[in-house]
Amino acid sequence: MLDATHDPALTSWVESANAAAGDFPLQNLPFAAFRRAGSAESFRGGVAIGDVVLDLGALHALGVLQGLAAQALALCAQPVLNAFMAAGHEASAALRAALSGALRSGSPLTGRLRPLLVPQHAAEYRVAARVGDFTDFYASIHHATAVGRLFRPDSPLLPNYKWVPIAYHGRASSVLVSGQPVTRPCGQVLPPGATQPELAASRRLDYELELGVFVGRGNPLGSRVPLAEADGHVFGLCLLNDWSARDVQAWEYQPLGPFLAKNFATTVSPWVVTREALAPFRVPWGRPAGEPPPLAYLDDAAQRRAGAIDIQLEVWLDSARMRAAGVPPQRLSHSSFRDSWWTVAQMLTHHTVNGCNLEPGDLLGSGTQSGAQPAEAGSLLELTAGGRQPLTLAGGETRTFLEDGDRVVLRGWCERAGYARIGFGEAAGTVLAATPP
Amino acid sequence: MLDATHDPALTSWVESANAAAGDFPLQNLPFAAFRRAGSAESFRGGVAIGDVVLDLGALHALGVLQGLAAQALALCAQPVLNAFMAAGHEASAALRAALSGALRSGSPLTGRLRPLLVPQHAAEYRVAARVGDFTDFYASIHHATAVGRLFRPDSPLLPNYKWVPIAYHGRASSVLVSGQPVTRPCGQVLPPGATQPELAASRRLDYELELGVFVGRGNPLGSRVPLAEADGHVFGLCLLNDWSARDVQAWEYQPLGPFLAKNFATTVSPWVVTREALAPFRVPWGRPAGEPPPLAYLDDAAQRRAGAIDIQLEVWLDSARMRAAGVPPQRLSHSSFRDSWWTVAQMLTHHTVNGCNLEPGDLLGSGTQSGAQPAEAGSLLELTAGGRQPLTLAGGETRTFLEDGDRVVLRGWCERAGYARIGFGEAAGTVLAATPP
Repeated sequence: MLDATHDPALTSWVESANAAAGDFPLQNLPFAAFRRAGSAESFRGGVAIGDVVLDLGALHALGVLQGLAAQALALCAQPVLNAFMAAGHEASAALRAALSGALRSGSPLTGRLRPLLVPQHAAEYRVAARVGDFTDFYASIHHATAVGRLFRPDSPLLPNYKWVPIAYHGRASSVLVSGQPVTRPCGQVLPPGATQPELAASRRLDYELELGVFVGRGNPLGSRVPLAEADGHVFGLCLLNDWSARDVQAWEYQPLGPFLAKNFATTVSPWVVTREALAPFRVPWGRPAGEPPPLAYLDDAAQRRAGAIDIQLEVWLDSARMRAAGVPPQRLSHSSFRDSWWTVAQMLTHHTVNGCNLEPGDLLGSGTQSGAQPAEAGSLLELTAGGRQPLTLAGGETRTFLEDGDRVVLRGWCERAGYARIGFGEAAGTVLAATPP
Repeated sequence: MLDATHDPALTSWVESANAAAGDFPLQNLPFAAFRRAGSAESFRGGVAIGDVVLDLGALHALGVLQGLAAQALALCAQPVLNAFMAAGHEASAALRAALSGALRSGSPLTGRLRPLLVPQHAAEYRVAARVGDFTDFYASIHHATAVGRLFRPDSPLLPNYKWVPIAYHGRASSVLVSGQPVTRPCGQVLPPGATQPELAASRRLDYELELGVFVGRGNPLGSRVPLAEADGHVFGLCLLNDWSARDVQAWEYQPLGPFLAKNFATTVSPWVVTREALAPFRVPWGRPAGEPPPLAYLDDAAQRRAGAIDIQLEVWLDSARMRAAGVPPQRLSHSSFRDSWWTVAQMLTHHTVNGCNLEPGDLLGSGTQSGAQPAEAGSLLELTAGGRQPLTLAGGETRTFLEDGDRVVLRGWCERAGYARIGFGEAAGTVLAATPP
C-alpha cells in the first residue's frame, strides 16, 4: 500500500508542514470536521497540513480536482464525514493522492489553494463522524491484567481473555471532541466499610489512553467481515480518552459491565489518521512463546506479517496550579499500540462474527493501551496501584485520581527510519467540578 | 393526565376500532413509521385505529388540523418520529386530542379521512425512530435472581442489585422492527468440559420479554433529569425482544458484560403506545416490607402513588412443524410490568444522574420482565432451568432453547375496570438457520 504519498523526500509549499518533528507533514494528511472558531459556518471536512487546515468544502467549490478524487472531495464538503468514510479506500486513496499532489512544493495549484488555508489555532472541530454506535474493546493484556489484579486479586486475567477480543458497547451521544470540558460525574458509590451506597461526586475520576477506530465501509446485518477483509473496513484511527469514574464502576459493573462509570464523556482527537497514512508503520503481530494461537477466524499470515501498528502513545497532565505557576505539563506515561494483544482487524472481525452490522462512522475504542512495564500504564488506576501509591507532580502536588482543573492530553505518533514522522495531534480535556447532587 | 381521550364510552367511525378485545381502540392511538408494503414510498408516521393505519403524512397534506396539533402533525410526516418525540408532551397531547376528535363517531372529517386509511395487513413498518443509543436495563428482580442462580449459584442476586438500576449499553444498529427475521448467530463458546473455546452457531438461542421506552425530550450533556420530571422525557412504550445467545454470553460476559451475545438483533413492535394512552393504567409502586427504600434521588411520593404501570405481557411461540400441522401458537409465559423492581422514571433518572445526555428517539429496554412464579419467566433460560428441564410444546416437540423456524411473538396490553383495553400489537421474529462459520 506504500506509494508516492509516503515518499519522505517530498515537501509541501505549506512551510510549517516541513518542520522536523511535526504531526502533520505532507505524508500524513489526516481528516477532521471543522469550521472557523466562533463562527456560525457549517462544519465541513478539512485536512491538516503543518499548522493549518485546508478547507475541503472550499476546495470542492473551487472545482479543481477530477474523477474519483473530486467525487470523494464532494463528500468531504458535508458537515460530518460519514459519507466519505462509507466510500471506501479507493475513494480515500484517490483523494489522498490528489491532495498530496496539490500541497506538494511546486504544485501549480499553490496560488489557488493558499486562500483556503485556516490556521489550526483559529479552527474549531466537531467529532469527525456522526457516531452511530461506539464499541470499546479491552485489547491490552497488560491493562487487563493490572486492572484485574485490583478488582479481582485472585483471578486477575479471566479465562476468556486470551481467546475473546472482549468489548462492550459504550455511549455514542457523549463522544466529545478534544477541548470540550468534562464535568466530574456523580453516581452511586459504596464508601469503604459502608453497608449502603450513597450518591456523591466521583472521588476516583480517571482517564484511559486509547486509540479510536472509525469504521469506513459497513457490513449488512447478518454478514461477517473475514479477517482478510477487515482492514478494508477501517477508515482511520484517532486518539481516544475513555474517562472513567472508578468508584462508580466498582459498585455498578457486576454483572452487566460498566455503564454510568463511563458514559458521561469520551474524548476523541479531531484528526483521523487514515489507514493509508499508517501503512508504513505496520509491524508483525504474534503471540509470545507458549501462548496459544487465536481461533482460526482471528489468525492468518497477513496478520502475523503486518497486523500490528507501531503507534507511540503518551499521556500528559497539568493541573490548575501548574498552569498558574508556569510549570509545564508532565508526561505520565508512554506506551505503544504494537503491544496490543489484539489488532484492529481482529477486533473488527470479531465484532461481526455474529452478524452484527457495523456502519460507516461507527467508533471502536482499543481499550486502554498499557505496556508491560508499570510506567507504561495508560490509566491512573494502574499508575497509582488503585490509588494506594500517589504520583508526585512536577510542582509538588500529588495525585491518586484526577482533581478539578486537571487537564489530560493524549498524544500519539508514528516514527520509522526512512519515513516521515506522522502524528495524531491531541485529545485534550479539562475536568470541571461536579454539579452537586 | 386523564382527559376526554380516555373516555371509554367513545367509539370511532372506524368500525374495527370498537371491537371488544382489540389492541387499538380510539383510546389508544399509538404511533408508528410505515408505508404501503412492497412500495417504494417514503416512510411516514401513522396512527393505529382498529385494523387500519391512519396515514399522518397524508393527513398533514390535507391541512385540516390547526395550531399545535398541526405543528405536531407536520413532524409526523417525516420518515422517522424523532422530531415528533423531541417536541414533548404538549405537542403529542395536542395531536392525540385532535386525532381522537377526528376519528370519533360522528366526526365531520369522516369522509375526508376515510381515504387516508391503510389496512394494517397491507402496511410495512420500520423502527419508529432512528435510535441514537440503546440502553438495556435489568429491572426485574425476579429475572435477576433466577438468572443469577444459573450463572452464580452462590450469589444469585449481587449486593448492588437492590440499589442500582443496573443497565448496559446495547447496539443501536441492529434494532429491528417486528417481522424481520433473526439469523441464529455464531460466536465463541466453551463446550462443557472443553479447555479451549470453539467458533460455532449458538446452541442456546433465547428470547427476552421486555418493554422498550422511547425517549421524548432529551437532556443536555452534564444535566440531570430529576425524578419528578422523568416521565416528562418519556414519549411512549413498545414491546422489545432482546434476543440472546446464552452460550456466547456465558463465555464472553466477564468482566465487561454482554456484547456479541446480544448485539446481533433486538426486535421492537412497530407501535409505540404513548405515555398519555398509558395514564389510566398507572398503579402504586413500592418495595416489599423489609426491603430498604431506594436512595433519595430515586424515590418520591409521586412514584409511590403511581410510578408503576400495569402492563400485561405474554410470550407466544410456534415452530415450523406446528405451523405446518396447523397447531396454533402456544403461550409460554405471562407477566406484568407492575412487578418491576424499578419504574421507567427511576431508570431514566438514574441514566442521567452522571450527566449522561439522552436524545429524542433513544431506546431504553426494561430488562426481561419475569414475575415471581416460575411460569411467569420471560426467557427460556429461566423457563427451562438453564436448559435442564425441557418444555413440551402443543404438537409434542420439546424445547430447551429456540430452534430454527421458531417464531416468537411478544404481546402486551392494559386493562382496568372503567377504561377501554389498549394493546401494543406484537413484536414478532422467526429464527433463521445460521450461516456456517
